[in-house]
Amino acid sequence: MAVAATHENFAPITEDEIFAAHEGGQLRISSALPIVDVRSLSIAYTPGVARVSQAIAEQPALATRYTSASRLVAIVTDGTSVLGLGNAGPLAAIPVMEGKAALFKSIAGVDAIPLVFNTPDTEEIVRTLTCLRPSFGAVCIEDVASPRCFALEERLSAVLDCPVVHDDQHGTAIAVLAALRGACRVLGRPVESRRVVVVGAGAAGVACADLLLAAGITDVTVLDSRGILHPGRSGMNEVKTPLAERSNPRGLRGGLDRALAGADVLVGLSSSTVPEELMRTMAPEPIVFALSNPTPEIAPDTASRYAGIVATGGSDHPNQVINTLASPGVFRGLLDSGARRLTERMRLAAAEAIAAVAEDGLAADRIVPSSLDPRLAPAVAARVAAAAEV
Amino acid sequence: MAVAATHENFAPITEDEIFAAHEGGQLRISSALPIVDVRSLSIAYTPGVARVSQAIAEQPALATRYTSASRLVAIVTDGTSVLGLGNAGPLAAIPVMEGKAALFKSIAGVDAIPLVFNTPDTEEIVRTLTCLRPSFGAVCIEDVASPRCFALEERLSAVLDCPVVHDDQHGTAIAVLAALRGACRVLGRPVESRRVVVVGAGAAGVACADLLLAAGITDVTVLDSRGILHPGRSGMNEVKTPLAERSNPRGLRGGLDRALAGADVLVGLSSSTVPEELMRTMAPEPIVFALSNPTPEIAPDTASRYAGIVATGGSDHPNQVINTLASPGVFRGLLDSGARRLTERMRLAAAEAIAAVAEDGLAADRIVPSSLDPRLAPAVAARVAAAAEV
Repeated sequence: MAVAATHENFAPITEDEIFAAHEGGQLRISSALPIVDVRSLSIAYTPGVARVSQAIAEQPALATRYTSASRLVAIVTDGTSVLGLGNAGPLAAIPVMEGKAALFKSIAGVDAIPLVFNTPDTEEIVRTLTCLRPSFGAVCIEDVASPRCFALEERLSAVLDCPVVHDDQHGTAIAVLAALRGACRVLGRPVESRRVVVVGAGAAGVACADLLLAAGITDVTVLDSRGILHPGRSGMNEVKTPLAERSNPRGLRGGLDRALAGADVLVGLSSSTVPEELMRTMAPEPIVFALSNPTPEIAPDTASRYAGIVATGGSDHPNQVINTLASPGVFRGLLDSGARRLTERMRLAAAEAIAAVAEDGLAADRIVPSSLDPRLAPAVAARVAAAAEV
Repeated sequence: MAVAATHENFAPITEDEIFAAHEGGQLRISSALPIVDVRSLSIAYTPGVARVSQAIAEQPALATRYTSASRLVAIVTDGTSVLGLGNAGPLAAIPVMEGKAALFKSIAGVDAIPLVFNTPDTEEIVRTLTCLRPSFGAVCIEDVASPRCFALEERLSAVLDCPVVHDDQHGTAIAVLAALRGACRVLGRPVESRRVVVVGAGAAGVACADLLLAAGITDVTVLDSRGILHPGRSGMNEVKTPLAERSNPRGLRGGLDRALAGADVLVGLSSSTVPEELMRTMAPEPIVFALSNPTPEIAPDTASRYAGIVATGGSDHPNQVINTLASPGVFRGLLDSGARRLTERMRLAAAEAIAAVAEDGLAADRIVPSSLDPRLAPAVAARVAAAAEV
């Protein structure tokens, strides 16, 4: 049975092929100092290694130079919101985390290992990672359900003296901003004056709205399953309430129909459906990013009848807007620079780096580069490192 | 400055060489499924990986087949008793843990990653590893101070449904038993009737005494810094008190002089010194294992004047008796067999496997094989797996 297609030309992937490839798991640990004889053993392990340990005991900062741990990314999840599967649990989340680690290595040379929690308790996860702090150099939070993901990122950032990045928030937001820059450039329109509607107020939707605002786009309206966020609306959580204050400058109320009327850009980061008839109500030649995975908010073929630019989150259409455009290079830049935080300035710089790489060959069906473009991660890493306020 | 010598012939290792080799740390994460194009991306990560995750969600046992995590050994330490350095702390322990992981991979193909704790609180470590249970398939405890190491191993074994092995206890005990078998064979003496004195009642000393007793050696006497363990003695902890009941069948009391008089075997697993004059009081041609690292309890050249067989824990003399003879193969066997525990039966089998490999070329200066002997880990793994009661 074929399970994946792509706009690139290759034979359908079968289930047998997938399971055969995942036999034994995706990750391997290897040694940069292979131990092949007594001499290499004496350097890699006892007695030689004691000199390195002693040096670190005397000068702890040397750990960043002489340990792998200090440059290891812990990919942290509790499996409560697994890509395409929802609350699948920690065990089922492991293959996705191993895949993310494989991506980090293949794309950006970043060493990463999954730390998978069988508790969804934020304070328990915080306490665990605090105990293990010397074991890693950065934390990538993945597939943790909203709104708990916000508290987890905030708490971990407060207690750990290393970068903590919730990829579903910031990786996605960076990719969306880069894609919007590319789309606006293709269409010859200024980014800042676009009227943007973000459908979805989960991890990705909230972070995306915030980064678009930070980029100078003033008219951003966000919806959750109950409609447009506005001050005083009922059914909002601790993240949506302040976002309602920052967004929706025209004070809209109501549902998707009210939000999309006259809008230039739709950014779908939900699991909802956008009816075809609402496409007609948007501004001429709108930009439609239907990024829900695996099922976009509106079928790209349908959207194309109205939109100037269409993008999805899948590899089966052109313009794949996905956090893997950003996060491998972002972590490379964080580790290279020794930064303690991923700041807004660094996120904006990362988006600009992606957009700059896209310029070569920019077109309506190529507003972002491929995640696998070999120029991408080094460009993002360099811009993130340069923007780091260390 | 030269920091390591060996009885094998190679140029002295310099500090510069050691630090250059450890630059960037010892471990690397790699992907068994390199992501080079959209097709491999679609298999390793989204959308293909969702099929694997879904299968595990439906049938959790499949995680052992389709994840690397299930076959990963977590090398756990708090840095309270680091090889040759004592209580050096968690950060300084990292190079030693990375070296151990490099050894596991080089010797036995075992994937391992250090989990380094900045707390020495047993219950905190237990809680942390309980939270992270899906992330690994076995636990190797390293360099945790005695007597806390015993409680930690016991508590972790009670709460985790995977093997938990304190290498400084069991790896060392297995190596000592194997070496004793080799030494007795060289000297043509039966193992079981040897009078054995174990100097040191820390992690290694206690486990070693227990395994020698389990192997049928009835006359084992153990000393700590206050002298011979015997029932009712003062200054014993929760581990030494029951050991005093099991050992010392002749009811000896006093110090090293009383213990060594007429003894056949000295096993040094302490940081103490054994005076030369006591060598004369032992049985003729005694077996002397002075395993303290980096400084043996008695200089091997001195011991050789009296002893039939001398062994140390270092690579700078023949007969290196060290836990790396055992643990890589032991973990390979545990993972291969799916065993939940390292039982006494498996420890005895591991010692026999090492002794069997040593038989080829057995001599007074070769009572154990090299840790790097390519036959060793597979032999140990096979015997451990065969002895596993799954």
